[in-house]
Amino acid sequence: MTKIVIVGGVAGGASAAARARRLSEDAQIIMFERGPFVSFANCGLPYHIGGDITERSKLLLQTPDSFLARFNVDVRVMSEVISINKQAKTVTVTNLLEGTSYEEEYDFLLLSPGAAPIVPPISGIDNPLTFSLRNIPDMDKIIHAIGLNKPTHATVVGGGFIGLEMMEALHQLGVETTLLELADQVMTPVDREMAGFAHQEIRDKGIDLKLGVALKAVEFAPNQSIANEEAGEHTDKQHLIGHLDLSLSNGETLTTELLIMAVGVKPETSLARQADLKIGDLGGIWTDAQMRTSDPYIFAVGDAVEEQDFVTGEPTLVPLAGPANRQGRMAADNMLGRAQEYQGTQGTAICKIFDLAVASTGRNEKQLQRDGVDYEKVYVHTASHASYYPGAEIVSFKMLFDPESGKIFGAQAVGKDGVDKRIDVMAVAQRAGMTVEQLQHLELTYAPPYGSAKDVINQAAFVATNIISGDSTSIHYDQIDNLNDNQLLLDVRNPAELENVGFIEGAMNIPVDQLRQRMHELPKDKEIVIYCQVGLRGNVAYRQLVNNGFKARNLLGGYRTYKFAQA
Amino acid sequence: MTKIVIVGGVAGGASAAARARRLSEDAQIIMFERGPFVSFANCGLPYHIGGDITERSKLLLQTPDSFLARFNVDVRVMSEVISINKQAKTVTVTNLLEGTSYEEEYDFLLLSPGAAPIVPPISGIDNPLTFSLRNIPDMDKIIHAIGLNKPTHATVVGGGFIGLEMMEALHQLGVETTLLELADQVMTPVDREMAGFAHQEIRDKGIDLKLGVALKAVEFAPNQSIANEEAGEHTDKQHLIGHLDLSLSNGETLTTELLIMAVGVKPETSLARQADLKIGDLGGIWTDAQMRTSDPYIFAVGDAVEEQDFVTGEPTLVPLAGPANRQGRMAADNMLGRAQEYQGTQGTAICKIFDLAVASTGRNEKQLQRDGVDYEKVYVHTASHASYYPGAEIVSFKMLFDPESGKIFGAQAVGKDGVDKRIDVMAVAQRAGMTVEQLQHLELTYAPPYGSAKDVINQAAFVATNIISGDSTSIHYDQIDNLNDNQLLLDVRNPAELENVGFIEGAMNIPVDQLRQRMHELPKDKEIVIYCQVGLRGNVAYRQLVNNGFKARNLLGGYRTYKFAQA
Repeated sequence: MTKIVIVGGVAGGASAAARARRLSEDAQIIMFERGPFVSFANCGLPYHIGGDITERSKLLLQTPDSFLARFNVDVRVMSEVISINKQAKTVTVTNLLEGTSYEEEYDFLLLSPGAAPIVPPISGIDNPLTFSLRNIPDMDKIIHAIGLNKPTHATVVGGGFIGLEMMEALHQLGVETTLLELADQVMTPVDREMAGFAHQEIRDKGIDLKLGVALKAVEFAPNQSIANEEAGEHTDKQHLIGHLDLSLSNGETLTTELLIMAVGVKPETSLARQADLKIGDLGGIWTDAQMRTSDPYIFAVGDAVEEQDFVTGEPTLVPLAGPANRQGRMAADNMLGRAQEYQGTQGTAICKIFDLAVASTGRNEKQLQRDGVDYEKVYVHTASHASYYPGAEIVSFKMLFDPESGKIFGAQAVGKDGVDKRIDVMAVAQRAGMTVEQLQHLELTYAPPYGSAKDVINQAAFVATNIISGDSTSIHYDQIDNLNDNQLLLDVRNPAELENVGFIEGAMNIPVDQLRQRMHELPKDKEIVIYCQVGLRGNVAYRQLVNNGFKARNLLGGYRTYKFAQA
Repeated sequence: MTKIVIVGGVAGGASAAARARRLSEDAQIIMFERGPFVSFANCGLPYHIGGDITERSKLLLQTPDSFLARFNVDVRVMSEVISINKQAKTVTVTNLLEGTSYEEEYDFLLLSPGAAPIVPPISGIDNPLTFSLRNIPDMDKIIHAIGLNKPTHATVVGGGFIGLEMMEALHQLGVETTLLELADQVMTPVDREMAGFAHQEIRDKGIDLKLGVALKAVEFAPNQSIANEEAGEHTDKQHLIGHLDLSLSNGETLTTELLIMAVGVKPETSLARQADLKIGDLGGIWTDAQMRTSDPYIFAVGDAVEEQDFVTGEPTLVPLAGPANRQGRMAADNMLGRAQEYQGTQGTAICKIFDLAVASTGRNEKQLQRDGVDYEKVYVHTASHASYYPGAEIVSFKMLFDPESGKIFGAQAVGKDGVDKRIDVMAVAQRAGMTVEQLQHLELTYAPPYGSAKDVINQAAFVATNIISGDSTSIHYDQIDNLNDNQLLLDVRNPAELENVGFIEGAMNIPVDQLRQRMHELPKDKEIVIYCQVGLRGNVAYRQLVNNGFKARNLLGGYRTYKFAQA
């Protein structure tokens, strides 16, 4: 009989427990969880706060009782594992309700402690109106505070997944919201110019978005009248009613009534460090591909561990639910004698930002630049399904690839429809080792309500293959404002478009459909830098000019990429 | 200067013309189209009839003028190419408006004539109220007939894409509709049991669906009062007002006021046959992988040609827009000296059937059985996104694979949300040569509004891998009604579910969560055939029983697959 002890009862731990029981009926399985709940839907927390998920009970996917009945797992909540004795193969557990401690033996130990919100050491940050969001009690506290303080204004610090979701939740509750982000963009898995679409959406919805701004100090001002009125009684109203005065790095001050800190998470490694397990360079628990730590009887999974990046093979921290769940399942396999190897993390991610979805997989351009990798990129903006069928929305898509081999480095997409689908396609193609040339041949579902005969991905592949084959010479949005005297900027859209959606200063305008007749207006000794709205007509114009002996470049993604990069 | 002559100006032909011009500015390109329109949205025709696409003009993607302006293509509509002289490299063209004919030389000829609706030789079928739908004039005629005859009842013959879309269009117009299908299922790209979901949806919407029923004879009965009233004037009202009496193969008769024939299409090969080009065994124009016919100067693409099946390498007919468009582009490449090879067709397809999407890629079970291929299959029914987030719908998913290598043979999905995405993922995975084992590791986009931490595809891969590894022994829906005396049927759902959604006659009921306590009620000398609602709890019960020394099987897809297979 194998005795498996699991620390942490959410994604990775719960998956491991269920899988272990399916593999072995006689294994003894104990799952410790320091909080009151196991297997809760942590990704759903912001949506309950915002009211999308109306019933709190829906977030509680399993209970200790249901785990026992179905999987014969001994779940002990409010039980914190405070130390590991590797030699004796025991853990010391504190019962947080009774304050007592005891030892528990194991044959195999699984660490799935997760990652904790980072709360930077900001003056005054420790106050009754400042919260972070990790679990059900955190969520309950925020809901309680909103109910009591009835904020008319809230501030979210951090433009990652949780920050963006909390921003939307608060906005949905009718609370005026400021989002502070230290970087020059939200949603850092995508590149700056793709985040521009998100910035526009966030501002369009009325959020006060401040990029490149840090929170410097917080001052809590309790509401005096309430405090006096209830003097003597020590209710939480005294603490939860009032406001905060925020000092920002740009010199501004801000009065707010609720502050959500969502600047990121860090792996929970205290238990692993105490047990002298190997910690990786990025600060996560080190494991091999079988999810085994430096101790052969201890496994670790989820947000607390360093994973191997699928593209580079280097260690990475990817605190996401998908990898955690699959790693948990795999750790159970390996504890019970089935060799399963985790095959690296692409970091595939998606975030709903009001009506937009923003998603990515693989490496982004910032990472490739940092790593000194030689890459090419394309942008396309294409309808999510046949544009003549109702409901089509533009998918703005970026693809990064190796200019030599055509190997896919990564992809990013933003839009109101079909974004998840396109990144899923890319995630599969990348994992399968496909090249951009092969993406041309993908045969995806097509009927007018669902796609196009030439899908977004096919089109991006055509553009990429044109670049690799030398059929297209591109220029990018960030080079347009620095043209030299030997370059001439040509806008090939219709005059009405220039008027309605704007244009790039200094551009000459010849609509693509007049170009053959008016080609003589262009100089042959200059490089013609062509742009249209999304790059498609630009390519037609480019091919015309080059085939007529002109030097030319086409702005990939066209005016749309150029414009939103500034948003 | 290369002179390219194209026969047919829709998907394949138009793609080829545009690509050829982008590759060569000095090529001469002439595109003949026997109808009045080029580059129209043929996939959108039913949706304009049904009113989803309100503006007819949206279906006209390009005009001869726009093609000339942008691509310098000489488009000649109402011009039918009636013969090819391979030796002289000329075609004979009839101007259908003027009745005149002329010769046109070519360096390369591209045939993109499409496929024509099959109209079976049924007595009386040639009448003014019977239509098929291939192009804009067909659509206009149907709309005209609906406007004049104001049908209260219509009949569609054929449950393929066009038949299903026309059924929905007519229903949307408030016309009571009968759908006749000779086979025992609609949407033959998917297997019978998956089509059951569509049958249920079709009947739920009030359509009179008759499966296994053929149309035997039609009798046209013009409305006499109208005919008399307008006697002398020869208006089309005389012809378009009245009804049809239909005789069906099951002995029934049916009175209807509009008849749509949509039993399938056949490749247009008359021109190719006249020119003695090689015709394949399936009746389509033969081409090599470069889309070149048996004459080196003649290419052919689209619905008229036989393609290579991606899975089997055998010839196949796949009259779909995606392959046609990509083949057209490729033929232009090859005519202009760039070697491009078409890499086979998976037949990826999707159809909207009211609120459902039904989609597939690769081979289905019927084809695998016919070809004598050894295969395994799994069914899962999983939420399209996190079930606790609003709007989740069940995706019913079937995957076929090689039990030895794990190679993907095909996949099918049905549901109200996220069906296109899952089949796209499978289409990419199959094209990349992935195995079902590898699908376990797919890292797809996950946030509650878009997916699940363990996606439908991951889950199907887990089930498939369990089968390959011997961790699961399955039974299928069509074996359940033929159990023998050594088998015992066990329903592991809760009693309330049996009451609410039904159960299989003769099943014993022990809820999975009571199984450990009540295992002694089960015989060890019989094989326990377990089922639950979708197969997930069944697997938990299966593992429990097997690990306790019982013989067992689990019904994949559970009661849901069993029940809908009968719909």
